[in-house]
Amino acid sequence: MRQLIRAGIVGASGYTGGELIRLLHAHPEVELTAISSRTFSGKQAGEVFGSLTGSGYKFEDLSPEEIVARTDVIFVAAPHGVAMEYAPIAYAAGKKMIDLGPDFRFRDASLYEQWYKIPHSCPQLLAGAVYGLPEIHRHEIADAKIIGNPGCYPTSIILALAPLFEAGAVADSFVIADSKSGISGAGRKADPAYSFCELTGEVRPYGVLQHRHVPEIEQELSLLAGAPVKALFTPHLVPVIRGIVSTIYAWIKPGYSEELIRGLYEERYKDEPFIMLLEPGLHPGTKAVAGSNHCHISVDFDPATSTAVIVSAIDNLGKGAASQAVQCMNIMFGLDETAGISGYPPFP
Amino acid sequence: MRQLIRAGIVGASGYTGGELIRLLHAHPEVELTAISSRTFSGKQAGEVFGSLTGSGYKFEDLSPEEIVARTDVIFVAAPHGVAMEYAPIAYAAGKKMIDLGPDFRFRDASLYEQWYKIPHSCPQLLAGAVYGLPEIHRHEIADAKIIGNPGCYPTSIILALAPLFEAGAVADSFVIADSKSGISGAGRKADPAYSFCELTGEVRPYGVLQHRHVPEIEQELSLLAGAPVKALFTPHLVPVIRGIVSTIYAWIKPGYSEELIRGLYEERYKDEPFIMLLEPGLHPGTKAVAGSNHCHISVDFDPATSTAVIVSAIDNLGKGAASQAVQCMNIMFGLDETAGISGYPPFP
Amino acid sequence: MRQLIRAGIVGASGYTGGELIRLLHAHPEVELTAISSRTFSGKQAGEVFGSLTGSGYKFEDLSPEEIVARTDVIFVAAPHGVAMEYAPIAYAAGKKMIDLGPDFRFRDASLYEQWYKIPHSCPQLLAGAVYGLPEIHRHEIADAKIIGNPGCYPTSIILALAPLFEAGAVADSFVIADSKSGISGAGRKADPAYSFCELTGEVRPYGVLQHRHVPEIEQELSLLAGAPVKALFTPHLVPVIRGIVSTIYAWIKPGYSEELIRGLYEERYKDEPFIMLLEPGLHPGTKAVAGSNHCHISVDFDPATSTAVIVSAIDNLGKGAASQAVQCMNIMFGLDETAGISGYPPFP
Amino acid sequence: MRQLIRAGIVGASGYTGGELIRLLHAHPEVELTAISSRTFSGKQAGEVFGSLTGSGYKFEDLSPEEIVARTDVIFVAAPHGVAMEYAPIAYAAGKKMIDLGPDFRFRDASLYEQWYKIPHSCPQLLAGAVYGLPEIHRHEIADAKIIGNPGCYPTSIILALAPLFEAGAVADSFVIADSKSGISGAGRKADPAYSFCELTGEVRPYGVLQHRHVPEIEQELSLLAGAPVKALFTPHLVPVIRGIVSTIYAWIKPGYSEELIRGLYEERYKDEPFIMLLEPGLHPGTKAVAGSNHCHISVDFDPATSTAVIVSAIDNLGKGAASQAVQCMNIMFGLDETAGISGYPPFP
Repeated sequence: MRQLIRAGIVGASGYTGGELIRLLHAHPEVELTAISSRTFSGKQAGEVFGSLTGSGYKFEDLSPEEIVARTDVIFVAAPHGVAMEYAPIAYAAGKKMIDLGPDFRFRDASLYEQWYKIPHSCPQLLAGAVYGLPEIHRHEIADAKIIGNPGCYPTSIILALAPLFEAGAVADSFVIADSKSGISGAGRKADPAYSFCELTGEVRPYGVLQHRHVPEIEQELSLLAGAPVKALFTPHLVPVIRGIVSTIYAWIKPGYSEELIRGLYEERYKDEPFIMLLEPGLHPGTKAVAGSNHCHISVDFDPATSTAVIVSAIDNLGKGAASQAVQCMNIMFGLDETAGISGYPPFP
Repeated sequence: MRQLIRAGIVGASGYTGGELIRLLHAHPEVELTAISSRTFSGKQAGEVFGSLTGSGYKFEDLSPEEIVARTDVIFVAAPHGVAMEYAPIAYAAGKKMIDLGPDFRFRDASLYEQWYKIPHSCPQLLAGAVYGLPEIHRHEIADAKIIGNPGCYPTSIILALAPLFEAGAVADSFVIADSKSGISGAGRKADPAYSFCELTGEVRPYGVLQHRHVPEIEQELSLLAGAPVKALFTPHLVPVIRGIVSTIYAWIKPGYSEELIRGLYEERYKDEPFIMLLEPGLHPGTKAVAGSNHCHISVDFDPATSTAVIVSAIDNLGKGAASQAVQCMNIMFGLDETAGISGYPPFP
Repeated sequence: MRQLIRAGIVGASGYTGGELIRLLHAHPEVELTAISSRTFSGKQAGEVFGSLTGSGYKFEDLSPEEIVARTDVIFVAAPHGVAMEYAPIAYAAGKKMIDLGPDFRFRDASLYEQWYKIPHSCPQLLAGAVYGLPEIHRHEIADAKIIGNPGCYPTSIILALAPLFEAGAVADSFVIADSKSGISGAGRKADPAYSFCELTGEVRPYGVLQHRHVPEIEQELSLLAGAPVKALFTPHLVPVIRGIVSTIYAWIKPGYSEELIRGLYEERYKDEPFIMLLEPGLHPGTKAVAGSNHCHISVDFDPATSTAVIVSAIDNLGKGAASQAVQCMNIMFGLDETAGISGYPPFP
Repeated sequence: MRQLIRAGIVGASGYTGGELIRLLHAHPEVELTAISSRTFSGKQAGEVFGSLTGSGYKFEDLSPEEIVARTDVIFVAAPHGVAMEYAPIAYAAGKKMIDLGPDFRFRDASLYEQWYKIPHSCPQLLAGAVYGLPEIHRHEIADAKIIGNPGCYPTSIILALAPLFEAGAVADSFVIADSKSGISGAGRKADPAYSFCELTGEVRPYGVLQHRHVPEIEQELSLLAGAPVKALFTPHLVPVIRGIVSTIYAWIKPGYSEELIRGLYEERYKDEPFIMLLEPGLHPGTKAVAGSNHCHISVDFDPATSTAVIVSAIDNLGKGAASQAVQCMNIMFGLDETAGISGYPPFP
């Protein structure tokens, strides 16, 4: 009989944690052996997520040692700072860890400390950690013990720009990313500002010029460009539950037409199972990707101003968090990369 | 120069308080001279409600004595128990008070105490307090010093049933009210259960067989019937911001047709400026009344089971709270009853 | 190598058709060999449903003979009257057919003709057709060639009442069902009345006392009761995409307590994989079932009026249509009844 | 007794028309004497807009001559091409006309013809027509007979950029406007793509690089700049009913700080009753302006890239259409500019 991978989740009561339970439960190669939450310890999963009524899972309050002992891989879906407590223990035990927070996304601990305002407790593990964006770092992910799963905005922006920067087509070291995010990206909040009444009908920017995802975007774009890239990033809240649309403006070197730019994307992503380049005239929307691991991308070009307008859409809880983490797990364990995340999403 | 009525609001930072600011600001006969809130004292109104940016109002933390001194009428838009602290002071000063909570809705203090679990501190004022439903108690409101403004559900249900009970057409002492309420009815909540993500897409009943509005509904229906009436009431949350639709099932005495029943409503409400009886085949919806003081009503009858199906719609923050309170104020001060609340609501 | 079941879909461009594509694509025992649509013939699935971008499916305009020849089972997701054209051809070829419309739901052709205003073209096939509600008709489904898959409202109401009627606990031959349905139940509509702007914020009843699902509800409840049952049914539109909540009022014979009534449900549904009886105090909501084949049920009882208040929730496109059809298919082909529909739904 | 201004509406059954009925009904100086609609002629207003139930207005099918004869001013809320039929008749009769469509927005008829693909039938009237943005063209509006009321996107973008261009602070002749619009901007549509089910949860760009509002934006910005300005404009649909948020990126000349830029806005708009500059750290959202004639603006500046990020929010049916038209009317008739549109909007 086939040996199932034993998986555990830390911080399982948030939206990303709940999505991981759903995906790992249905994953053909995985057994979910530990669901940890301090707040909801002792509760049935159905009490924490009505959608899991009847699933039989139970939340426990497990120490790092306990959850590592019981699993082959742990997913940490907790606020920044938590994964640093689990990483040394998992690492020492030879287990794998996928952090859905920022603790292991940066190559440079000081950048982390500058933006997240706490010291990094295990900088020695950063060198071996891999930024878990499979379309960019697939081979390193295969060998990694620790994954820093990308932020949702960075996933949408880096995937949208990688073909341009890899081809050296960008004329300026500066791009603008105007992103629109569903509310689930803010987590499960007890805050009137996130209530149904205050967000239904509301669209507004936030964190203008100072969002924490900027250094992560710039780190990866600079790696792709081979030179420092600056991203001016404006996130907006939009009243959808799941989904990010990033509308990106990049200045292109002379000699490119829309067709040539489009060709860069076709070539770059033709074998990627989760990236869909849309036909000319179509543009990505949140709804077609919500509930999936897909990334839809469109390409437009304004020759008068040499501006490429690249639009990408992902599910912030899917390709922007939980299903991307499962994609990384699949790669780390040598499984079919699409196992458990190959479905098309519900519509409407 | 015309003398304006000086009005004050206690608990001005909730949704009902905000609606009162909006309505009283635009009221041609009113000057808003006191806006009280402990939490937001010192804040500009625009910081508490973005929609009031530029209005120039400021929140203050006023004692009962201060607010009574500064006004001719106070509106209390606070949790149960608060209005009882203001009532004796306003009463002694000869000022009027309109309580949008339950403290002055019951003729019997023990009923209040049984459902709200606190003692009533000024039961001696209950006898003079009037249940502020103008279509039922207009004349008493004109002479009252203290108004217990009706709950939102009771407003929708009592208005829908009054013509039947007044005409003696109901065969049973028992009715069913299945109500659907917008989320603003729950107030301005810091609770993940009221967040955008958890309520968008959600419809569910709550408080089944035990909602606090039941005694208020039964008190008023029994008065109309001249005999005890029991109401089986099932409230539901629906993902709209404003609006209540109540679908009501009542059993009718022999001899009535749909046309005769409809006639009772036409006759009863033909001079009411805020009650609209819909044409046969049309049914009330939340959207057409949201933002107004209107109540839409439809009448259907199933002869096979002698069941009348009466549907009513109101805005829970309008006719179910703030604009109804203004309607009471207009009556109390001898103004045109529609002053400041005569507008048609925005659509869509 | 395992032989896959070849499935086809007629009317694949509607919401139910799209859900069938999604479910059958992911079903481990099924190969989707025909997707038929007159309007969208020649289109990629991704052009009809953005969510299917990259799936590779193509819409064709297939005659009944062609689609029957190419499949082992056809799903008809089309307006009433269409399935009658396919049934004789599928039947003659020894193939199975699951109709998601009303053509094969009635034992009595005249009832169909009275409500749907067209003659039934193959009444001789009605006797062998089975009403596809597995929890009630599982054994007959196993042997059937033609399934009349239940309507969405009837599914929610019959499942909620079956334990009461089967136990003979209902005192009256009359029940009230007050249902709230998501908008997808109306299909993919080109009608301003179904536009985003007119339905966002809207809750209203429709089809009061005259909805076409009434005869279907009454047929099945009468069978369960062994005597004619009348259902007074009031459907409401609520601004959610997927989901039905039915709040049902039934009068109970003397001798029952809430606990005893609850026991009837526990016993009746304890082995049903898709029916979840909620703990006392919890009530079903649309959100926890949307995207699944689950039915959540709550039981409350008011001894003063002998009224049971039963609430059920399903996904109108899931247990109310497409996934219930797949459940029937699983039974008809001797598969695990949960194959392809065992997942928990996304949340939030 | 005061003489009321007699107003008429052409195309009264659309969303802008409905908003005009609501505003003009409540306007203290206006009498609504003609409501014209071919499709709904003979209908009560309450049949066309449920929100107007009980208002007593009736739709008529009036010829241009009839409506002009009956009114002092007509509002044309119809598709492009319609106002051109009314303008000569109104002009000849010495009556005023406010067109909410594009027919009279362009100084150059050929620009109109290029973008709207039809010949302009009365180019001789263009010279006297005024672009109805009071904050820019107040004095010309006062004397105009014909107003081309601005488009919703242009209003939000021009108001956001006027202080910068007027001060000569923009370094480049090129700006980027990334706008997010509520669905009502598309009008009252019978199109499944605008249905509740397909737009709830959806955010996506459309008309990328080719929206018809571009020439209007560029015309006005160029006038302000005194030189040709190019606008790269990306509109997005967002699932709100009313509201536009425009996030605008402009490159600033050396020597400016955020404080200096902010000062330009404070100075420019300090006496404008409908423009609110938000405090640093706050950003405009759709919800705070929906239902009003307000425009909220925020100012941020990134010195590293010399980029100003200006965000504005308006109600596309309010300041972006109907209430702006009323503001123009007030100016044209010498009334208080805020008459009938001075209210604060409902919240939430």
